[in-house]
Amino acid sequence: MILIHTPSPKEIDAYLQLFRQAMPEETFVDHARADPAMVRHLVAWGIPDGMLPTLTRLEGIFMLGAGVDKLLSHPELPPHLPVYRLLDGGMTAQMIEYIRYGVLGYQRNMDLYRREQAAGQWRKLAPRLPADVHVGILGLGEIGAAVAKALAHDGYQVSGWSRSPKHINHVHSLHGEAGLEKLLESCDVVASVLPSTPQTKGLLNGERLSLMKPGSMLINSGRGDLVDEQALLALLNNGHIRCAQLDVFGVEPLPHDHPFWRHPAVALTPHIAAVTLRQEAVSQIVDNLRRKAHGEEMTGQVERGQGY
Amino acid sequence: MILIHTPSPKEIDAYLQLFRQAMPEETFVDHARADPAMVRHLVAWGIPDGMLPTLTRLEGIFMLGAGVDKLLSHPELPPHLPVYRLLDGGMTAQMIEYIRYGVLGYQRNMDLYRREQAAGQWRKLAPRLPADVHVGILGLGEIGAAVAKALAHDGYQVSGWSRSPKHINHVHSLHGEAGLEKLLESCDVVASVLPSTPQTKGLLNGERLSLMKPGSMLINSGRGDLVDEQALLALLNNGHIRCAQLDVFGVEPLPHDHPFWRHPAVALTPHIAAVTLRQEAVSQIVDNLRRKAHGEEMTGQVERGQGY
Repeated sequence: MILIHTPSPKEIDAYLQLFRQAMPEETFVDHARADPAMVRHLVAWGIPDGMLPTLTRLEGIFMLGAGVDKLLSHPELPPHLPVYRLLDGGMTAQMIEYIRYGVLGYQRNMDLYRREQAAGQWRKLAPRLPADVHVGILGLGEIGAAVAKALAHDGYQVSGWSRSPKHINHVHSLHGEAGLEKLLESCDVVASVLPSTPQTKGLLNGERLSLMKPGSMLINSGRGDLVDEQALLALLNNGHIRCAQLDVFGVEPLPHDHPFWRHPAVALTPHIAAVTLRQEAVSQIVDNLRRKAHGEEMTGQVERGQGY
Repeated sequence: MILIHTPSPKEIDAYLQLFRQAMPEETFVDHARADPAMVRHLVAWGIPDGMLPTLTRLEGIFMLGAGVDKLLSHPELPPHLPVYRLLDGGMTAQMIEYIRYGVLGYQRNMDLYRREQAAGQWRKLAPRLPADVHVGILGLGEIGAAVAKALAHDGYQVSGWSRSPKHINHVHSLHGEAGLEKLLESCDVVASVLPSTPQTKGLLNGERLSLMKPGSMLINSGRGDLVDEQALLALLNNGHIRCAQLDVFGVEPLPHDHPFWRHPAVALTPHIAAVTLRQEAVSQIVDNLRRKAHGEEMTGQVERGQGY
């Protein structure tokens, strides 16, 4: 028996239908119809308190998303239970789109033209070619590496930063504290797809954000707790950072009184940069369940110690 | 002797320097230093009244741009004088960027999220894949065909419309009045790169704009006189057309009291979608001048009857 759970009953119904079509030999149920002692696998995001202790024969959790930070800090998560995240679910292509939109807008001065329009000013700015713009990607996992490659293909200068050294064609790979400082100092656009881990929390504090080039742009579509939002606001207000495209925040939904909502240099989106596409997610989880049934190697198992 | 003229003395100086470096065997001058009877070629945009009649031995005009509508309607232009336009000058890549930015923003609902942000609303919209968005390109000359191919490569459904039938891989080619109506009725985004000719003037009148799909987008980076701006405003105001990204206008600079400036569904730019990059333009014109000197076939000669 496989239990499907998300915070939305409508979404659960949609997933049940897709899973039953894709894997008719298995039994998929929602929480109301589940016999907790019979549930061997849980497919979920947003697991409520009290659910995990009832699932006494659970063999694994399949997350309906790439981010697993909330689950890993869940006090009821058994310490050795395997957790599998989606490798993609259509999210890589979406993340490329989201970051490309920000970078392209910066290169073509679309953020500045938007402000000129608001001021009623007709003024041509100096054109800039992709090769004139240096983009730094924070995080070079599967998604970050794909973003870096796509932007290099678009003609931008691309650097990338990760915990350990990587080798990606046409991407200047940096790592460690010195590498991070070098990236922040040299890039026109800094885009983060970093997950939330104890190591990334608060990584872009005021001191590091101040290292960014005058007139640069910050894109954050990883996790909100990466960035010191007050420090970012101060740097946007004094014009040191030209603009920001933000999809994730310290508190979500973003509180109504947060200055980001009305800031002319901030474009904000409600955590939609890369969402799980249901059919893709179902295909990937079904494939993984079949691998397990056949004793084959599975994909996407989370390294609990590293947090992703 | 080759005369260089643009409305900006600073720009003339920059061009003189580039042309002298690229073609040291020729004499390049500005208007003040020119002996009008010695000028064989004119490299220009924005030719002032009274200049052409003094250039009695002129053999050809090289335009510093792709649009030649103003020159062709110049009453002093000798009827059989050859006119050459820039085939590219870096403009194709820029036009792809400008239209891709608009299409990508539409696909990812960035225009709607901008309005949600202004309203202080955190609301996720249904994601849309490139394959869900049908883009129609008006104009399939060198620039339009390149835009169509690039968007098809990005994964969008792409149709294109031109005066005569064209064959472009992965692009559904339409022509004639029936083809135009079909494109307008079926596309989510309509993007025009059409030049201004007697045939295109007012082409997108109220009747044809009304054929566009509910919730669609208009991008105009061709010429402003293509569009009935009052009809477009009415369709934006009643929500039939969701948004517009406009680079060209009936009157430029756009008058201060024009409603486009403050319209929440309009993103406007000051005719910068594709600007001539000087070094590119110089290389192309020098190449053409050398072809002429060697009696070889030249590029970019304008068909005066067709207007491009």
